[in-house]
Amino acid sequence: MPAGVYGHLSTARSPEGTPQFIVEADGAHIVDVDGNRYLDVMCGFGTNLLGYRHPDIDRAFTTQLGAADAMTGASPLSVELAEGYCTQVAHADWALFCKNGGDATSIALLTARAHRNRTKVLVAAGSYHGASTWSTPVPAGTLPVERGHFLPFAYNDPDSLRAAAAEAGDELAGIFVTPFRHDLGVPQELPDPDFARTARELCDEHDALLVLDDVRAGFRLARESSWHHLGVEPDVSCWGKSLANGHGLSAVMGNDRARAAAASIFVTGSFWHAAAPMAAALATLEVLRTTDYLEHLERLGDRLRTGLAAAAGRHGLALSQTGPVQMPLVMLLGDDGAPDQPRTRRFVSALMDRGVYFHPSHNMFLNAAMTEADIDGAVTAADEAFALVAAG
Amino acid sequence: MPAGVYGHLSTARSPEGTPQFIVEADGAHIVDVDGNRYLDVMCGFGTNLLGYRHPDIDRAFTTQLGAADAMTGASPLSVELAEGYCTQVAHADWALFCKNGGDATSIALLTARAHRNRTKVLVAAGSYHGASTWSTPVPAGTLPVERGHFLPFAYNDPDSLRAAAAEAGDELAGIFVTPFRHDLGVPQELPDPDFARTARELCDEHDALLVLDDVRAGFRLARESSWHHLGVEPDVSCWGKSLANGHGLSAVMGNDRARAAAASIFVTGSFWHAAAPMAAALATLEVLRTTDYLEHLERLGDRLRTGLAAAAGRHGLALSQTGPVQMPLVMLLGDDGAPDQPRTRRFVSALMDRGVYFHPSHNMFLNAAMTEADIDGAVTAADEAFALVAAG
Repeated sequence: MPAGVYGHLSTARSPEGTPQFIVEADGAHIVDVDGNRYLDVMCGFGTNLLGYRHPDIDRAFTTQLGAADAMTGASPLSVELAEGYCTQVAHADWALFCKNGGDATSIALLTARAHRNRTKVLVAAGSYHGASTWSTPVPAGTLPVERGHFLPFAYNDPDSLRAAAAEAGDELAGIFVTPFRHDLGVPQELPDPDFARTARELCDEHDALLVLDDVRAGFRLARESSWHHLGVEPDVSCWGKSLANGHGLSAVMGNDRARAAAASIFVTGSFWHAAAPMAAALATLEVLRTTDYLEHLERLGDRLRTGLAAAAGRHGLALSQTGPVQMPLVMLLGDDGAPDQPRTRRFVSALMDRGVYFHPSHNMFLNAAMTEADIDGAVTAADEAFALVAAG
Repeated sequence: MPAGVYGHLSTARSPEGTPQFIVEADGAHIVDVDGNRYLDVMCGFGTNLLGYRHPDIDRAFTTQLGAADAMTGASPLSVELAEGYCTQVAHADWALFCKNGGDATSIALLTARAHRNRTKVLVAAGSYHGASTWSTPVPAGTLPVERGHFLPFAYNDPDSLRAAAAEAGDELAGIFVTPFRHDLGVPQELPDPDFARTARELCDEHDALLVLDDVRAGFRLARESSWHHLGVEPDVSCWGKSLANGHGLSAVMGNDRARAAAASIFVTGSFWHAAAPMAAALATLEVLRTTDYLEHLERLGDRLRTGLAAAAGRHGLALSQTGPVQMPLVMLLGDDGAPDQPRTRRFVSALMDRGVYFHPSHNMFLNAAMTEADIDGAVTAADEAFALVAAG
């Protein structure tokens, strides 16, 4: 590979002791190529929602694989799955399936621009919406003129959103938002309700589309799209990661307002209609509907946050714990009150040595296969790691 | 779904009788939701190279699935697979893995532009390189200013290639080519060696990258990249479709010249490092190396072409059969000698009625699970279909 393992799985800039190659994943744990076992608090960067190798979901997958997967023609499962999501998610009147989260955001982008044949899209500064040619956060190889059609705003700042919309003027095609601020290396922010409502109102005023990028958070915060609890419904939502609990599937959902635009664009992929991941997604949806996975995640997340705060306090360390409890970002603070990366990396290294896989700058994820004992074990390991950091 | 089944699996504009929903795929055959069985000469639009549900390949896939698939960290299989391709493909000094063919062409695009920080890319008019925001053949939702950085040339025309390169001038980042002309609805063209060499020379003169888009044809024409037999090696090649015989995987391969650029871009996807499709790809590579699958495909393709020509002749019909025999495009000609779509569609409908799945305007694909009896059966069905068409 040109620069070693690439993308979100690259460990080139990870804390010392981060394992690079993994050979086994089961429930809440992974085992690296050297035989070390970790409680995996990254959950495949979100793909693992209900536990690696979930028996019911994997059985649905392999059973379908034994009949048909990618083929010449769609599976009836694609209709069943679209109907399932349209029942589950309030704003969804239709659904499309794809593979990458970036496919979903690309479909949303084309749909927003096609809606009224406009060019400008508002995106929060520093927000990640995938690594397609238009969205990758590294400029190498991208087209500056294309980037100029994305206008930045500050997350959670209604005034900056209004200013960006005014700048776009008659060319405002849509507004992209993540359900909360989960940018790399900075404290996470829950959405301000006034900000969310402003995004909705601006799209209504301009006849533009509100796109909620729920790829990372979808179904981990709610059995709905992640702004449903705020009373704010997007026109288009993007999903991925955990939809099929680790099997390759992403999706776009939309309302009737966005239907004509979504029907006018041409998008496709060799494996987008593959049936086995759809069978897994249907099985995942069944678990979401019939179990307390969400409440379990919240309880575990509260327990982890409380435990880490107490442990850090015992060692006189200031800790930043931000975002929803089931998608935590944990960073040690320096004397100036700002996140201290070197200290956080030492903390994470010490956790890795103790069999707990944390990330120093990317939000983490809990999964429903985790137990209270797993969380307590992580807190005990953190207590030891904090002691080491406090001792310098 | 906003406009029904979408993309390459949409049957909205297909000939009457084309089945829309498929429930079973096995070897060379598919079964639709109404229980009709077809010899599938579309092969999942190329994903099926060695037969649906190939036992060795699917066993490798499910065995790996039982250990680990998508997770927090790469699998050692990704290294093994990259090494496998670098051994197999002459120009490959490195490999990257992704999901869609469009991911592979997008990575090639970013790499070409990053190579010398340039903007202009030459693409043959009418050529398909995926349905990403920059490549989708339908303009709805796309950015005209972005499209302006792709300069067209005529496939197989060295002079038009030179003219486009001259127009790009100092901004020439790369040239994209398919290994043969396989555009929708027009007769296919095998590559003219002088055209291929001209593309290589222009890239050398301009220090630009030659990108061979082998997504559709890869490993179906050769155990190498598809221009190897011409003595023309690309800097970057794009692969997908059949790499893992139907399991979701695509790849980019490149030479050392393109390495620094490929290392400088940021690309990633939630499922790109999933291990099970890589296990399937390794098993596929083993079959490619150790069996006569390729010679078998060529023999079947010759048999189909010869049989169809004779059958059409018996009914006084003029037939266009173009492209490599294992990726044929078959169209009936009108009295003016041009492809006659209405007649071709009647022919394909009659074939569908007889359990043979053909396509009227997209190149088709043979797979190695097909037998001489399958081909002979298709020719018999075609003979009956030609009789119906000839009778009006």
